[in-house]
Order: sequence, then structure tokens, then C-alpha cells
Amino acid sequence: MLAIYNIRLVIEYDGKDFNGWQKQNDKLNIQGEIERAIEIITGEKVELIASGRTDAGVHALNQIANFKIDKDINIEKLPYALNSQLKKSVRIKTAELVDNEFHSRYHAKKKTYRYVINNSSQGSSIYRNLEYNFPLHLDEKLMQEAIEYFIGEHDFKAFKASGGSTKSSVRTIYNASVRREGERIYIELTGNGFLYNMVRIIAGTLLDVGLGRIKPEEVKEIIESKDRSRAGKTLPPNGLFLVNVDYNE
Amino acid sequence: MLAIYNIRLVIEYDGKDFNGWQKQNDKLNIQGEIERAIEIITGEKVELIASGRTDAGVHALNQIANFKIDKDINIEKLPYALNSQLKKSVRIKTAELVDNEFHSRYHAKKKTYRYVINNSSQGSSIYRNLEYNFPLHLDEKLMQEAIEYFIGEHDFKAFKASGGSTKSSVRTIYNASVRREGERIYIELTGNGFLYNMVRIIAGTLLDVGLGRIKPEEVKEIIESKDRSRAGKTLPPNGLFLVNVDYNE
Repeated sequence: MLAIYNIRLVIEYDGKDFNGWQKQNDKLNIQGEIERAIEIITGEKVELIASGRTDAGVHALNQIANFKIDKDINIEKLPYALNSQLKKSVRIKTAELVDNEFHSRYHAKKKTYRYVINNSSQGSSIYRNLEYNFPLHLDEKLMQEAIEYFIGEHDFKAFKASGGSTKSSVRTIYNASVRREGERIYIELTGNGFLYNMVRIIAGTLLDVGLGRIKPEEVKEIIESKDRSRAGKTLPPNGLFLVNVDYNE
Repeated sequence: MLAIYNIRLVIEYDGKDFNGWQKQNDKLNIQGEIERAIEIITGEKVELIASGRTDAGVHALNQIANFKIDKDINIEKLPYALNSQLKKSVRIKTAELVDNEFHSRYHAKKKTYRYVINNSSQGSSIYRNLEYNFPLHLDEKLMQEAIEYFIGEHDFKAFKASGGSTKSSVRTIYNASVRREGERIYIELTGNGFLYNMVRIIAGTLLDVGLGRIKPEEVKEIIESKDRSRAGKTLPPNGLFLVNVDYNE
């Protein structure tokens, strides 16, 4: 029998408690945790497909995932039912019935990521798992100047960690901004897709710009070089949030 | 020998990891944790005096505390030195040398507390320890109307949990506000002092107002009744933050 109901979930999670999205054998992961809850609630073993994987420690405010089941279930109550079975570090925000063709990964058109830097000397105890503490002063105006070079279609090979599985490293960035609010700096990027560790490497490169180690205009050369060794280091996962996934052009 | 250096600390902590400020025998507490670090760094056993205790689970953005030592230490490097010995859930933000007479508790003139309600149906995984999730819709305009009755000098006996040690329950509230940002509601109160659980009981009462169970103007009567049973329930500690302590009139 073909599964006939296609259900789309909006999911928030605290990445610190998981070894990333992807199902693995022993380690706690978000996909496996939610599939377990779905099986308890619906009685069906499903495969939950996300818009993309997130690494261990990375958070999501609105991850999108879908799964198919045979059983007609109460879709309105599904978030409550699933949350009652899930660890508190993952929440189903909403659930809706979608077209049978809808595919969370293939149909994602844009993604927005945010990287949060706490730019204070001692960092924060309360938000320590939700930001990266960097104690030396960063000039956010230089960082804003630099981030604009990422906008447009580029080969981002210089900003890709080894280990990613995609063939092409060409991506389009639609929006990119850096803003400071007090001691925090927020880096935000919207693109049609991101390579493995791409946002964290861009954030690390912007950090060098904020310190004056790299000039904003050098970012253009680094992109063109396609040389990973010329970009900055990969910042830790705890400062990274998947903010949104957009399915419209 | 008299201790001659009086040192004032600004401290941030994540209340979830501690059984409150006050030193207790077995349980992890903030006072004991910092006193331990001070002893390691300075070699002196000190008593750390805070502006006031906070309960288990309550957070502080800028708690103030002071201690006296005999030894001349590098005050600029003290936050780094102490933080290197502290759990990550507590951070010393700054340290400064102050008048020998300065007393964190006796000289505190104003305190500001914030209570955070996540007013969404499923709550947040990421911020679950930093807010109280209440799923039914709250009308923040009614809550704002109600909170204004707290402003001024009142006997707040109706908003005091048993167990507090203070004699008088008269306090002055200087500022009080309720604001909504998306799904979050922020209740903020500045006063010359707060009774045991007072902010959490005020927040619980405002929650009843936001639901329409209590009319804003009834808050006046509840205050005048001095009857704890007429006020709302005590909301959980994880939504409460000590924001600031002010030592000027």
C-alpha cells in the first residue's frame, strides 16, 4: 500500500543536546528522535526528510521536514501528541497536510542561517550554548562591508569543508548582513543552498575582517581563489541557527 | 588584620544549574561556587555578599556582590582569573575596587526584575530554561493596564510567599511594564526591594488578567486585601531574571 498522507512539520531544536540531524546508530540525533515519536503516535515506521542536515550542536528555529503515512490522523493535535513523546530539546511547532509531491529537501528554494557572536571579554553564562564568545573587539562595519562580496552566484569552494557530498560548489546568496546589538554580532545569510560548514567558515572569515587581519575587499579574492586555506577558520557549531527554509521562488 | 580591599563584582548566571544563590551544605549554589574560586585565586576565605538571594532556577544578568580581602590583587585580571575556576554557568562580568563601606545588600537602592512568558502553543526547545511556556493566548494590553496598579508604595503582603524573613511587606515600585514581542511577553518591574517570590506571584496574577479571569482594576483590590489567596499562583523560577541592581537614588 502506498502511503497517502504527506505531512510537513516545522521543527525547533536545541542542537547542543543532539549529534546533529542525521540518523546514526548509537548517538542521539534529531531525525531518529522524531521518527521514534511518530512511530509511537501513528504506529507507522516512517522516514523523516528534512530540508537539509544540521551538524552536531547547530540549532534550528524553523527546520522543515516531511514524512508520509497511510493512516488518517488528527493533524491539528499532532504537534501536541509528538511533543508529549519528544525530549524537551526538540519541539514540533506546527504540522500540516501537504501535496503528496512535496519534498522538504528537493523543493527548498532558500535557506536563511544566522551566526551569533558574543563579542564581550567574559562571554555569557546564560547564552553560552547559543552563541560563540569572541573576546577581542570586532569592527562590525568592516564585517558588513566584507559580507556584501558574498552576495550573488559564486563558486564557494574556498568556504567548503571537506566531507560534503555535493558535486557543484556554486551557490547563490540573496541576502547577507552583519548587525551589532550591544555586545552581540549577528551574521545572517540567505541563499539557495549552503555547502558543508559554509556559514561557519564565512563567519570565521568575517571574524578576521572584524579584527583587521583581512581587508573587506580581500574577500572577493578569497572567493575567486577557491582555496579553502585562504578563508578563515570554521567557527564552532553552537553559534549557528537554521532560521528559515523557504519553498517559494 | 582587617581586610582592606573591598571588591565589587558584576555577575551573570544561569539559574538552572544551581540551587539558588545562598550557600548550603551539599547543594551547588552560586555563592559557594564563587567563594571557592576566590579562595583558589587569592588564597583567602571570604564571605561574598550579594544584593539579595535568588531562588533555585532564577537567572541573573547583573547580580552585584562584594567581598573583602587583605591581599592586593590585580583587579583588572580578576574576572579572567575567577572565570577560569568557575563553572561555565556563572560568569564574572567585571570586578572593581570600591569604598570599604560599600555593602551590596544594604546599599542597594533599586532592583529590576524581568519575567519572560513564551505565549505559544508548543513553547520553545532552545529557550525552555529561560522562559515559562503558557500556551493559551494572553492579552498583553490588559496585563499592561493591570501592572500599573503596582506602581507606588504599597503593602505587598498579598504577593509574598510564606518563608520570607523580612518584617515589613511595604515596598515601592517605580516602574512596571508589560510588552509583547511576537510570541513572548516581557514583564518588567523596578522597585526598592521585592518580597519572597513577589515578582513570580505578580507575574502569575498578570497571567490571570491576560486570560480575562481577573479584571485589571481588581488588582487594586487584591493589593489592598493583603490576602495571598486572592493573588495568582507563583510562576516557575526559570522565567525570572534579576536584570539590574542600582546603587543610586
